[in-house]
Amino acid sequence: MKDKIAIPKTTIERLPLYYRCLSKLDRLDVEVISSKELGDRIGVPSTQVRKDLSYYGEFGRRGVGYEVKSLLRQLERILGLDSYWPIVLIGAGNLGRALVNYEGFRRLGLEIKAVLDTDLNKIGNRISNIEVESFKNLDEIVIKHKIQMGIIAVPAVFAQEVADQLVNVGVKAIWNFAPTRIVIPDEVKVKNEDLSVGIVGLVYHLARLD
Amino acid sequence: MKDKIAIPKTTIERLPLYYRCLSKLDRLDVEVISSKELGDRIGVPSTQVRKDLSYYGEFGRRGVGYEVKSLLRQLERILGLDSYWPIVLIGAGNLGRALVNYEGFRRLGLEIKAVLDTDLNKIGNRISNIEVESFKNLDEIVIKHKIQMGIIAVPAVFAQEVADQLVNVGVKAIWNFAPTRIVIPDEVKVKNEDLSVGIVGLVYHLARLD
Repeated sequence: MKDKIAIPKTTIERLPLYYRCLSKLDRLDVEVISSKELGDRIGVPSTQVRKDLSYYGEFGRRGVGYEVKSLLRQLERILGLDSYWPIVLIGAGNLGRALVNYEGFRRLGLEIKAVLDTDLNKIGNRISNIEVESFKNLDEIVIKHKIQMGIIAVPAVFAQEVADQLVNVGVKAIWNFAPTRIVIPDEVKVKNEDLSVGIVGLVYHLARLD
Repeated sequence: MKDKIAIPKTTIERLPLYYRCLSKLDRLDVEVISSKELGDRIGVPSTQVRKDLSYYGEFGRRGVGYEVKSLLRQLERILGLDSYWPIVLIGAGNLGRALVNYEGFRRLGLEIKAVLDTDLNKIGNRISNIEVESFKNLDEIVIKHKIQMGIIAVPAVFAQEVADQLVNVGVKAIWNFAPTRIVIPDEVKVKNEDLSVGIVGLVYHLARLD
Protein backbone atom coordinates (compact mmCIF):
# COMPACT_ATOMS: atom_id res chain seq x y z
CA MET A 1 0.00 0.00 0.00
CA LYS A 2 1.51 3.28 -1.13
CA ASP A 3 0.19 6.67 -0.09
CA LYS A 4 -1.20 8.48 -3.15
CA ILE A 5 -0.35 11.96 -1.91
CA ALA A 6 2.45 13.28 0.27
CA ILE A 7 1.25 13.07 3.86
CA PRO A 8 2.93 15.40 6.40
CA LYS A 9 5.50 13.71 8.60
CA THR A 10 3.81 15.14 11.70
CA THR A 11 0.53 13.48 10.70
CA ILE A 12 2.27 10.13 10.26
CA GLU A 13 3.96 10.56 13.63
CA ARG A 14 0.59 11.09 15.29
CA LEU A 15 -0.97 7.91 13.86
CA PRO A 16 0.58 5.66 16.54
CA LEU A 17 -0.75 8.06 19.18
CA TYR A 18 -4.28 7.84 17.79
CA TYR A 19 -3.88 4.11 17.62
CA ARG A 20 -2.73 3.81 21.22
CA CYS A 21 -5.48 6.10 22.43
CA LEU A 22 -8.22 4.22 20.55
CA SER A 23 -6.89 0.86 21.76
CA LYS A 24 -7.23 2.06 25.31
CA LEU A 25 -10.72 3.44 24.71
CA ASP A 26 -11.72 0.14 23.12
CA ARG A 27 -10.42 -1.80 26.12
CA LEU A 28 -12.59 0.48 28.29
CA ASP A 29 -15.59 -0.33 26.05
CA VAL A 30 -15.97 3.26 24.83
CA GLU A 31 -17.94 3.05 21.57
CA VAL A 32 -17.85 6.56 20.10
CA ILE A 33 -15.44 9.49 20.49
CA SER A 34 -15.56 13.04 19.09
CA SER A 35 -12.62 14.63 17.31
CA LYS A 36 -12.50 17.13 20.19
CA GLU A 37 -12.11 14.42 22.85
CA LEU A 38 -9.64 12.49 20.72
CA GLY A 39 -7.63 15.68 20.15
CA ASP A 40 -7.59 16.49 23.86
CA ARG A 41 -6.08 13.10 24.59
CA ILE A 42 -3.38 13.45 21.90
CA GLY A 43 -2.73 17.12 22.57
CA VAL A 44 -3.89 18.59 19.22
CA PRO A 45 -7.01 20.60 18.24
CA SER A 46 -10.05 18.78 16.84
CA THR A 47 -9.43 20.37 13.43
CA GLN A 48 -6.03 18.69 13.31
CA VAL A 49 -7.55 15.31 14.21
CA ARG A 50 -10.02 15.59 11.35
CA LYS A 51 -7.30 16.74 8.96
CA ASP A 52 -4.90 13.96 9.96
CA LEU A 53 -7.49 11.24 9.48
CA SER A 54 -8.89 12.75 6.27
CA TYR A 55 -5.65 11.83 4.46
CA TYR A 56 -6.71 8.20 4.80
CA GLY A 57 -10.45 8.34 4.22
CA GLU A 58 -13.79 9.43 5.63
CA PHE A 59 -14.07 7.91 9.06
CA GLY A 60 -16.16 10.16 11.30
CA ARG A 61 -19.77 11.23 11.15
CA ARG A 62 -20.58 14.90 11.58
CA GLY A 63 -22.15 15.61 14.95
CA VAL A 64 -21.57 12.02 16.11
CA GLY A 65 -17.84 11.39 16.05
CA TYR A 66 -15.78 8.31 15.36
CA GLU A 67 -16.79 4.74 16.11
CA VAL A 68 -13.87 3.55 18.22
CA LYS A 69 -13.75 -0.07 17.08
CA SER A 70 -14.12 0.78 13.42
CA LEU A 71 -11.50 3.55 13.46
CA LEU A 72 -9.15 1.26 15.36
CA ARG A 73 -9.44 -1.42 12.65
CA GLN A 74 -8.85 1.23 9.97
CA LEU A 75 -5.76 2.52 11.75
CA GLU A 76 -4.46 -1.03 12.08
CA ARG A 77 -4.71 -1.37 8.34
CA ILE A 78 -3.19 2.07 7.68
CA LEU A 79 -0.31 1.40 10.05
CA GLY A 80 0.36 -2.05 8.61
CA LEU A 81 -0.37 -3.71 11.95
CA ASP A 82 -2.77 -6.13 10.27
CA SER A 83 0.24 -7.82 8.65
CA TYR A 84 2.95 -9.89 10.29
CA TRP A 85 6.38 -8.27 10.62
CA PRO A 86 8.98 -10.53 12.19
CA ILE A 87 11.85 -8.67 13.84
CA VAL A 88 15.51 -9.48 14.50
CA LEU A 89 17.09 -7.93 17.59
CA ILE A 90 20.84 -7.45 17.79
CA GLY A 91 22.23 -7.27 21.32
CA ALA A 92 21.23 -9.60 24.16
CA GLY A 93 22.13 -7.20 26.99
CA ASN A 94 19.73 -5.64 29.48
CA LEU A 95 18.11 -3.41 26.90
CA GLY A 96 17.68 -6.30 24.46
CA ARG A 97 16.10 -8.43 27.19
CA ALA A 98 13.81 -5.55 28.15
CA LEU A 99 12.68 -5.09 24.54
CA VAL A 100 11.92 -8.81 24.07
CA ASN A 101 9.70 -8.66 27.15
CA TYR A 102 8.18 -5.21 26.47
CA GLU A 103 4.40 -5.44 26.87
CA GLY A 104 3.85 -2.59 24.46
CA PHE A 105 5.00 -4.65 21.44
CA ARG A 106 3.00 -7.74 22.20
CA ARG A 107 -0.06 -5.56 22.44
CA LEU A 108 0.63 -4.46 18.85
CA GLY A 109 1.05 -8.05 17.71
CA LEU A 110 4.72 -7.41 16.93
CA GLU A 111 7.15 -10.18 17.65
CA ILE A 112 10.89 -10.32 18.06
CA LYS A 113 11.65 -13.54 16.22
CA ALA A 114 15.41 -13.82 16.74
CA VAL A 115 18.00 -12.35 19.11
CA LEU A 116 21.64 -12.24 18.02
CA ASP A 117 24.83 -11.35 19.82
CA THR A 118 28.58 -11.72 19.28
CA ASP A 119 29.25 -12.51 22.95
CA LEU A 120 29.91 -16.24 23.39
CA ASN A 121 28.70 -15.97 26.98
CA LYS A 122 25.29 -14.87 25.75
CA ILE A 123 24.84 -17.13 22.71
CA GLY A 124 22.72 -20.12 23.69
CA ASN A 125 21.03 -18.32 26.61
CA ARG A 126 17.28 -17.99 26.52
CA ILE A 127 15.37 -14.70 26.71
CA SER A 128 11.74 -15.46 27.26
CA ASN A 129 11.25 -18.30 24.73
CA ILE A 130 13.99 -17.21 22.31
CA GLU A 131 17.46 -18.71 22.19
CA VAL A 132 20.22 -16.15 21.58
CA GLU A 133 22.05 -17.00 18.35
CA SER A 134 25.37 -15.89 16.90
CA PHE A 135 25.43 -12.62 14.95
CA LYS A 136 27.40 -14.57 12.32
CA ASN A 137 24.14 -16.29 11.39
CA LEU A 138 22.37 -13.00 10.60
CA ASP A 139 22.12 -13.71 6.88
CA GLU A 140 20.45 -17.12 7.15
CA ILE A 141 18.16 -16.03 10.00
CA VAL A 142 16.87 -13.05 8.02
CA ILE A 143 16.18 -15.26 5.02
CA LYS A 144 14.61 -18.08 7.04
CA HIS A 145 12.16 -15.80 8.90
CA LYS A 146 11.66 -13.34 6.00
CA ILE A 147 12.73 -10.51 8.32
CA GLN A 148 12.56 -6.88 7.15
CA MET A 149 13.07 -5.09 10.46
CA GLY A 150 16.04 -5.00 12.78
CA ILE A 151 16.49 -3.52 16.26
CA ILE A 152 19.96 -2.43 17.35
CA ALA A 153 20.56 -2.68 21.11
CA VAL A 154 24.36 -2.83 21.20
CA PRO A 155 26.89 -0.35 22.65
CA ALA A 156 27.27 2.84 20.60
CA VAL A 157 30.69 1.89 19.20
CA PHE A 158 29.28 -1.19 17.43
CA ALA A 159 26.02 0.34 16.19
CA GLN A 160 27.18 1.49 12.74
CA GLU A 161 28.82 -1.85 11.97
CA VAL A 162 25.65 -3.72 12.94
CA ALA A 163 23.55 -1.31 10.86
CA ASP A 164 25.76 -1.88 7.80
CA GLN A 165 25.35 -5.63 8.15
CA LEU A 166 21.59 -5.34 8.54
CA VAL A 167 21.44 -3.28 5.35
CA ASN A 168 23.67 -5.82 3.56
CA VAL A 169 21.30 -8.69 4.32
CA GLY A 170 18.31 -6.71 3.03
CA VAL A 171 16.64 -5.36 6.18
CA LYS A 172 14.43 -2.38 5.23
CA ALA A 173 13.76 -0.71 8.59
CA ILE A 174 16.11 -0.24 11.53
CA TRP A 175 15.30 0.85 15.03
CA ASN A 176 18.49 2.04 16.68
CA PHE A 177 18.68 2.23 20.47
CA ALA A 178 22.42 2.84 20.65
CA PRO A 179 23.00 6.46 21.70
CA THR A 180 24.62 7.42 18.42
CA ARG A 181 23.26 8.38 15.02
CA ILE A 182 23.71 5.68 12.38
CA VAL A 183 24.05 6.46 8.70
CA ILE A 184 22.41 4.16 6.17
CA PRO A 185 21.16 4.37 2.56
CA ASP A 186 18.01 6.44 1.96
CA GLU A 187 15.92 3.44 0.91
CA VAL A 188 16.26 1.96 4.38
CA LYS A 189 14.19 3.67 7.07
CA VAL A 190 15.94 4.32 10.36
CA LYS A 191 14.51 5.47 13.66
CA ASN A 192 17.20 6.63 16.07
CA GLU A 193 15.68 6.19 19.52
CA ASP A 194 17.82 8.39 21.70
CA LEU A 195 16.52 7.91 25.21
CA SER A 196 18.51 10.85 26.54
CA VAL A 197 16.28 13.29 24.61
CA GLY A 198 13.37 12.50 26.93
CA ILE A 199 15.32 13.05 30.11
CA VAL A 200 16.85 16.31 28.89
CA GLY A 201 13.34 17.72 28.44
CA LEU A 202 12.56 16.87 32.06
CA VAL A 203 15.77 18.43 33.35
CA TYR A 204 14.88 21.60 31.42
CA HIS A 205 11.60 21.65 33.34
CA LEU A 206 13.30 21.09 36.72
CA ALA A 207 15.81 23.87 36.03
CA ARG A 208 12.89 26.29 35.67
CA LEU A 209 10.97 25.39 38.82
CA ASP A 210 12.33 27.94 41.31
CA MET B 1 15.90 30.12 35.92
CA LYS B 2 12.48 30.92 34.48
CA ASP B 3 11.87 31.70 30.82
CA LYS B 4 10.72 35.31 30.50
CA ILE B 5 8.54 34.70 27.46
CA ALA B 6 6.53 31.70 26.36
CA ILE B 7 8.83 29.55 24.24
CA PRO B 8 7.18 27.16 21.74
CA LYS B 9 7.09 23.54 22.87
CA THR B 10 8.61 22.45 19.55
CA THR B 11 11.60 24.73 20.15
CA ILE B 12 12.13 23.26 23.61
CA GLU B 13 11.86 19.77 22.17
CA ARG B 14 14.62 20.54 19.67
CA LEU B 15 17.09 21.79 22.31
CA PRO B 16 18.22 18.26 23.26
CA LEU B 17 18.76 17.55 19.56
CA TYR B 18 20.95 20.63 19.15
CA TYR B 19 22.77 19.65 22.29
CA ARG B 20 23.42 16.09 21.11
CA CYS B 21 24.53 17.29 17.70
CA LEU B 22 26.93 19.90 19.11
CA SER B 23 28.36 17.38 21.60
CA LYS B 24 29.16 15.09 18.72
CA LEU B 25 30.72 17.91 16.67
CA ASP B 26 32.77 18.92 19.69
CA ARG B 27 34.04 15.37 20.15
CA LEU B 28 35.08 15.48 16.48
CA ASP B 29 36.94 18.77 17.15
CA VAL B 30 34.68 20.80 14.84
CA GLU B 31 35.06 24.42 15.95
CA VAL B 32 32.43 26.38 14.01
CA ILE B 33 29.12 25.38 12.41
CA SER B 34 26.64 27.40 10.33
CA SER B 35 22.91 27.47 11.09
CA LYS B 36 22.43 25.76 7.71
CA GLU B 37 24.67 22.80 8.60
CA LEU B 38 23.21 22.56 12.09
CA GLY B 39 19.70 22.63 10.64
CA ASP B 40 20.54 19.90 8.13
CA ARG B 41 21.67 17.64 10.94
CA ILE B 42 18.53 18.26 13.02
CA GLY B 43 16.15 18.25 10.07
CA VAL B 44 14.95 21.88 10.20
CA PRO B 45 15.69 24.94 8.01
CA SER B 46 18.46 27.36 9.03
CA THR B 47 15.85 30.05 9.76
CA GLN B 48 14.30 27.75 12.36
CA VAL B 49 17.69 27.11 13.99
CA ARG B 50 18.30 30.85 14.32
CA LYS B 51 14.79 31.42 15.65
CA ASP B 52 15.00 28.56 18.18
CA LEU B 53 18.30 29.79 19.60
CA SER B 54 17.29 33.47 19.56
CA TYR B 55 14.80 32.78 22.38
CA TYR B 56 17.79 32.25 24.65
CA GLY B 57 20.25 34.89 23.49
CA GLU B 58 22.55 36.04 20.69
CA PHE B 59 24.88 33.14 20.01
CA GLY B 60 25.91 33.14 16.35
CA ARG B 61 27.87 35.60 14.27
CA ARG B 62 26.48 36.62 10.90
CA GLY B 63 28.42 35.06 8.05
CA VAL B 64 30.48 32.96 10.45
CA GLY B 65 28.13 30.71 12.35
CA TYR B 66 28.18 29.29 15.84
CA GLU B 67 31.26 28.43 17.86
CA VAL B 68 30.59 24.83 18.75
CA LYS B 69 32.21 24.76 22.20
CA SER B 70 30.66 28.03 23.28
CA LEU B 71 27.14 27.16 22.07
CA LEU B 72 27.45 23.77 23.73
CA ARG B 73 28.23 25.41 27.09
CA GLN B 74 25.29 27.80 26.63
CA LEU B 75 22.95 24.92 25.84
CA GLU B 76 24.17 23.05 28.89
CA ARG B 77 23.18 26.03 30.99
CA ILE B 78 19.84 26.50 29.19
CA LEU B 79 18.98 22.82 29.56
CA GLY B 80 19.99 22.74 33.22
CA LEU B 81 22.70 20.16 32.55
CA ASP B 82 25.25 22.28 34.42
CA SER B 83 23.42 21.41 37.67
CA TYR B 84 23.24 18.08 39.43
CA TRP B 85 19.91 16.22 39.25
CA PRO B 86 19.90 12.95 41.16
CA ILE B 87 17.33 10.43 39.94
CA VAL B 88 15.37 7.61 41.57
CA LEU B 89 14.46 4.66 39.38
CA ILE B 90 11.52 2.44 40.27
CA GLY B 91 11.70 -1.08 38.85
CA ALA B 92 14.79 -3.27 38.87
CA GLY B 93 13.80 -5.45 35.92
CA ASN B 94 15.55 -5.64 32.56
CA LEU B 95 14.50 -2.16 31.51
CA GLY B 96 15.59 -0.68 34.83
CA ARG B 97 18.97 -2.41 34.56
CA ALA B 98 19.33 -1.16 30.99
CA LEU B 99 18.57 2.42 32.03
CA VAL B 100 21.10 2.36 34.88
CA ASN B 101 23.76 1.28 32.41
CA TYR B 102 22.63 3.50 29.50
CA GLU B 103 25.67 5.31 28.11
CA GLY B 104 23.55 8.20 26.88
CA PHE B 105 22.78 9.41 30.44
CA ARG B 106 26.31 9.24 31.74
CA ARG B 107 27.37 11.33 28.78
CA LEU B 108 24.92 14.00 29.99
CA GLY B 109 26.28 13.82 33.52
CA LEU B 110 22.94 12.44 34.75
CA GLU B 111 23.03 9.82 37.45
CA ILE B 112 20.54 7.30 38.73
CA LYS B 113 21.17 7.54 42.46
CA ALA B 114 18.79 4.90 43.78
CA VAL B 115 16.91 1.90 42.39
CA LEU B 116 13.79 0.68 44.19
CA ASP B 117 11.59 -2.37 43.76
CA THR B 118 8.89 -4.20 45.67
CA ASP B 119 10.17 -7.65 44.69
CA LEU B 120 12.00 -9.25 47.62
CA ASN B 121 14.05 -11.29 45.14
CA LYS B 122 15.45 -8.08 43.66
CA ILE B 123 15.97 -5.99 46.81
CA GLY B 124 19.62 -6.23 47.88
CA ASN B 125 20.86 -7.12 44.37
CA ARG B 126 23.39 -4.81 42.79
CA ILE B 127 22.95 -3.08 39.43
CA SER B 128 26.24 -1.60 38.41
CA ASN B 129 27.32 0.00 41.73
CA ILE B 130 23.80 0.56 43.11
CA GLU B 131 22.07 -1.70 45.61
CA VAL B 132 18.38 -2.21 44.92
CA GLU B 133 16.33 -0.95 47.89
CA SER B 134 12.75 -1.46 48.98
CA PHE B 135 10.12 0.79 47.42
CA LYS B 136 8.84 1.24 51.00
CA ASN B 137 11.87 3.46 51.62
CA LEU B 138 10.98 5.87 48.79
CA ASP B 139 10.22 8.76 51.13
CA GLU B 140 13.51 8.71 53.05
CA ILE B 141 15.58 8.07 49.93
CA VAL B 142 14.07 11.05 48.11
CA ILE B 143 14.76 13.28 51.11
CA LYS B 144 18.28 11.94 51.70
CA HIS B 145 19.42 12.43 48.11
CA LYS B 146 17.32 15.57 47.46
CA ILE B 147 15.74 13.81 44.49
CA GLN B 148 13.34 15.68 42.18
CA MET B 149 13.15 13.21 39.29
CA GLY B 150 11.77 9.69 39.14
CA ILE B 151 11.86 7.07 36.39
CA ILE B 152 9.10 4.48 36.24
CA ALA B 153 10.17 1.14 34.78
CA VAL B 154 7.53 -1.17 36.23
CA PRO B 155 4.77 -3.18 34.48
CA ALA B 156 1.90 -1.06 33.15
CA VAL B 157 -0.57 -2.15 35.85
CA PHE B 158 1.60 -0.68 38.63
CA ALA B 159 2.64 2.54 36.89
CA GLN B 160 -0.13 4.83 38.15
CA GLU B 161 0.33 3.70 41.74
CA VAL B 162 4.08 4.34 41.56
CA ALA B 163 3.46 7.75 39.95
CA ASP B 164 1.05 8.72 42.75
CA GLN B 165 3.64 7.80 45.37
CA LEU B 166 6.36 9.75 43.57
CA VAL B 167 4.12 12.81 43.51
CA ASN B 168 3.30 12.32 47.22
CA VAL B 169 6.95 12.43 48.22
CA GLY B 170 7.53 15.61 46.23
CA VAL B 171 9.12 14.44 42.97
CA LYS B 172 8.67 17.15 40.32
CA ALA B 173 9.43 15.31 37.07
CA ILE B 174 8.51 11.76 36.07
CA TRP B 175 9.74 9.75 33.14
CA ASN B 176 7.33 6.90 32.56
CA PHE B 177 8.47 3.87 30.56
CA ALA B 178 5.46 1.72 31.37
CA PRO B 179 3.32 1.41 28.22
CA THR B 180 0.39 3.26 29.71
CA ARG B 181 -0.41 6.94 30.18
CA ILE B 182 -0.15 8.09 33.78
CA VAL B 183 -2.20 10.97 35.15
CA ILE B 184 -0.60 13.35 37.64
CA PRO B 185 -1.13 16.94 38.84
CA ASP B 186 -0.25 19.73 36.39
CA GLU B 187 2.65 21.04 38.47
CA VAL B 188 4.52 17.77 38.01
CA LYS B 189 6.02 17.26 34.58
CA VAL B 190 5.57 13.84 33.03
CA LYS B 191 7.16 12.35 29.95
CA ASN B 192 5.42 9.19 28.81
CA GLU B 193 8.04 7.27 26.86
CA ASP B 194 6.02 4.82 24.85
CA LEU B 195 8.53 2.70 22.96
CA SER B 196 5.87 1.20 20.72
CA VAL B 197 5.38 4.58 19.00
CA GLY B 198 8.80 4.26 17.36
CA ILE B 199 8.23 0.79 16.02
CA VAL B 200 4.78 1.61 14.68
CA GLY B 201 6.36 4.34 12.52
CA LEU B 202 8.75 1.76 11.07
CA VAL B 203 5.98 -0.73 10.37
CA TYR B 204 4.07 2.04 8.56
CA HIS B 205 7.14 2.44 6.34
CA LEU B 206 7.45 -1.30 5.69
CA ALA B 207 3.76 -1.54 4.79
CA ARG B 208 4.35 1.00 2.00
CA LEU B 209 7.42 -0.58 0.41
CA ASP B 210 5.84 -2.69 -2.33
